[in-house]
Amino acid sequence: MAKVTPISGFPEFLPSDRIVEQHFLDVIRETFELHGFASIETRAVEPVERLSNQGEDADKEIYAVRRLGAAADDEGPGLGLHFDLTVPFARYVLENSGKLAFPFRRYQIQKVWRGERPQEGRYREFTQADIDVVGDGTLPFHYEVELPLVIADAFSKLPIPPFRIQVNNRQIPEGFYRGLGVEDVTAVLRIVDKLDKIGPDKVTQLLTAADGPALEAETAKQVLRLAEISSTDASFVEQVRALGVQHEVLDEGLERLAAIMTAANEHAPGLLVADLKIARGLDYYTGTVYETQLIGHESYGSICSGGRYDALATDGKTTYPGVGISIGVSRLLARLFSQGLLKGSRSTPTAVLVALNDEADRADAMRTAAVLRQRGIPVEVAPAAAKFGKQIKFADRRGIPFVWFSTENGPEVKDIRSGEQVPADPATWTPPQHDVRPSIETPQENS
Amino acid sequence: MAKVTPISGFPEFLPSDRIVEQHFLDVIRETFELHGFASIETRAVEPVERLSNQGEDADKEIYAVRRLGAAADDEGPGLGLHFDLTVPFARYVLENSGKLAFPFRRYQIQKVWRGERPQEGRYREFTQADIDVVGDGTLPFHYEVELPLVIADAFSKLPIPPFRIQVNNRQIPEGFYRGLGVEDVTAVLRIVDKLDKIGPDKVTQLLTAADGPALEAETAKQVLRLAEISSTDASFVEQVRALGVQHEVLDEGLERLAAIMTAANEHAPGLLVADLKIARGLDYYTGTVYETQLIGHESYGSICSGGRYDALATDGKTTYPGVGISIGVSRLLARLFSQGLLKGSRSTPTAVLVALNDEADRADAMRTAAVLRQRGIPVEVAPAAAKFGKQIKFADRRGIPFVWFSTENGPEVKDIRSGEQVPADPATWTPPQHDVRPSIETPQENS
Repeated sequence: MAKVTPISGFPEFLPSDRIVEQHFLDVIRETFELHGFASIETRAVEPVERLSNQGEDADKEIYAVRRLGAAADDEGPGLGLHFDLTVPFARYVLENSGKLAFPFRRYQIQKVWRGERPQEGRYREFTQADIDVVGDGTLPFHYEVELPLVIADAFSKLPIPPFRIQVNNRQIPEGFYRGLGVEDVTAVLRIVDKLDKIGPDKVTQLLTAADGPALEAETAKQVLRLAEISSTDASFVEQVRALGVQHEVLDEGLERLAAIMTAANEHAPGLLVADLKIARGLDYYTGTVYETQLIGHESYGSICSGGRYDALATDGKTTYPGVGISIGVSRLLARLFSQGLLKGSRSTPTAVLVALNDEADRADAMRTAAVLRQRGIPVEVAPAAAKFGKQIKFADRRGIPFVWFSTENGPEVKDIRSGEQVPADPATWTPPQHDVRPSIETPQENS
Repeated sequence: MAKVTPISGFPEFLPSDRIVEQHFLDVIRETFELHGFASIETRAVEPVERLSNQGEDADKEIYAVRRLGAAADDEGPGLGLHFDLTVPFARYVLENSGKLAFPFRRYQIQKVWRGERPQEGRYREFTQADIDVVGDGTLPFHYEVELPLVIADAFSKLPIPPFRIQVNNRQIPEGFYRGLGVEDVTAVLRIVDKLDKIGPDKVTQLLTAADGPALEAETAKQVLRLAEISSTDASFVEQVRALGVQHEVLDEGLERLAAIMTAANEHAPGLLVADLKIARGLDYYTGTVYETQLIGHESYGSICSGGRYDALATDGKTTYPGVGISIGVSRLLARLFSQGLLKGSRSTPTAVLVALNDEADRADAMRTAAVLRQRGIPVEVAPAAAKFGKQIKFADRRGIPFVWFSTENGPEVKDIRSGEQVPADPATWTPPQHDVRPSIETPQENS
């Protein structure tokens, strides 16, 4: 057997970091459910043809899946691991349209896989937490306002830095580019999407390159001017108008984005920023698009993104337009962990270790543990009747705060942090609320 | 785009069945945490060489994973999707041994993949919920008693039929076969493991076949006699002794299984059955093995299995012996759903739909929803200001029990099952506890 080594891009957590991840996922799930989103999970695989042609370099990043024992021709159409949760969800909606009630609000928290070059916050396997609303034929505009508010509600309950949700409507650059006479709108969008990463000079170079969209210098300048516009209210409209470009698709996009900004400011002033450089790499978005920055970590890029897709789910007869946002849970946590912003208070759920005087007492110790568990207290029994010092060390290594002893005077419990030991009845003794379960520590706040 | 069709062996739940699955997973997780097991997740992929040679027809059932865009030679060693959670866990222990505290108690709830022929309860993608305890060099015997008690605790909180946990020690058949002079012990074990599926005649045929272990007829009879022994206490020992076979490995196995039966009967009389035909197909088990039957559904096979493995996790210097049990969550649910034993009370978490008199009232309705949510009540706002009958129908289709109205007399809430409508203040009104979240209905009990 070869030596055990990590596989690049497939990170795994130690138990104390996993406790932080579980807390994040629990808060996100609870928030999504409070907002009336139903959970689904989709299979990990889709036919490769359904995963293909969704933009960027997605195709070559798809992981193909095939039985080792399969003969070359007995497997039917090729399967691949899903690279997001939106494409599988659209397929799920088509497959189950007769059994779902529309508009259908669903959340989905699962792993996805992309064969990208691994780097900080970019993994080959990672967890996303998505909400989407999909309509049957039509989908009211107000969901495009609602979804970022749900995300803001979840984030407000998590120990993360302040954030801003950037919003755009793809009709704005699309109409604007068409008004400028640009032919390959998608190619220009994809280049502009890299603005934060590669800067305006490189973008200009790519836009004007003969083997690219080959824009005139003045056209490229206009494209960049549009991308630089942002506002926390509807005032971006005037700034766009001042550039003097006319197109009916542009008008529609401006009107829709202005409506989102106005409505969002009613509920959460300052939460949304209209930012006209936001485009999203995936081709299925047709209108509103979202990205989310952690303030103070802008260069890290978006940790929560999405948008409206009007044509992703269609069976030829009916189209199911949708809007969704996806929290990049692994990506968000990777940043917080690498910056030392979060850690779990212990490496196990256990709050109480029941110590043993003698191996013959194990049955009694198990009964004590069962009584404590009945009141929701996580308990384990010591692995062996070692010296008490060793049993206390066992608890200490894991961050278990309490050790339970059976003494001549009856049962007693020791808080191993303070050393205080008091008589205790397993039927009534309860640890302080904050010790019952592991908690999330934010080291910076404590220092 | 090809027509959307299910992929055989990759089942997906509708939202109301997913609510049942979530309830099961929540109860299992909560029980595992109360018993002091820490959560981990491992990556979906392992090097194929680590997955191979674990017994049965496992190799050809492995799903190989490869980037579509990968050149033939740039991917390093081949990767495959894990087919269980024990092999990845053993690798995780080796990889992180310096950072873990032993004995290490972990639980792991994840999807696994096997390219088996799909049939009822046998899927190509399914969810398992595992607990394991792994020691550093040694692992005390008492964990082999503890683990089935944890499973019994979880099952006692779930709406499932009564069950029995069957236990054996592989040393018993191994020592017995050696005492009989059998050479290929593993081959005989694998054939006996099929006893429930194919019956004693077919097993005898396979055991005596010239291209199989080629046992003498009398030897095969002895093998079958051993497999037929079972007891709910330690009395199986006498039955084995009566067969007159002698071997020191047999003695050790009998002693250990007798100790488990005695200790288990102290805590949960009747829960465990010593059943000497239980073998488990996977080769890594070295001692105690477990299977679990639902009573009344014996032909369905095991829904929770595991055992002790002494040599799975070894780096050449240190060996980390372990014992674990895995609940086949998908397999268990498939049976309960197919028999109509369970369903979710509604298809959404939403308990209250806030109706709209007019689209202009949406901002107010969203504020009402936010106030209710602050007290843990799942709420959504109606998709459109349709006629009230239509808005009530929207709730009814999803099983949402309450609709909130803004009337001339102030806010009122209607229980759409009884039709009763009463004045209500969003800051204080609370639905009955059993309506706040969806519940699990057991249709047989209600009929």
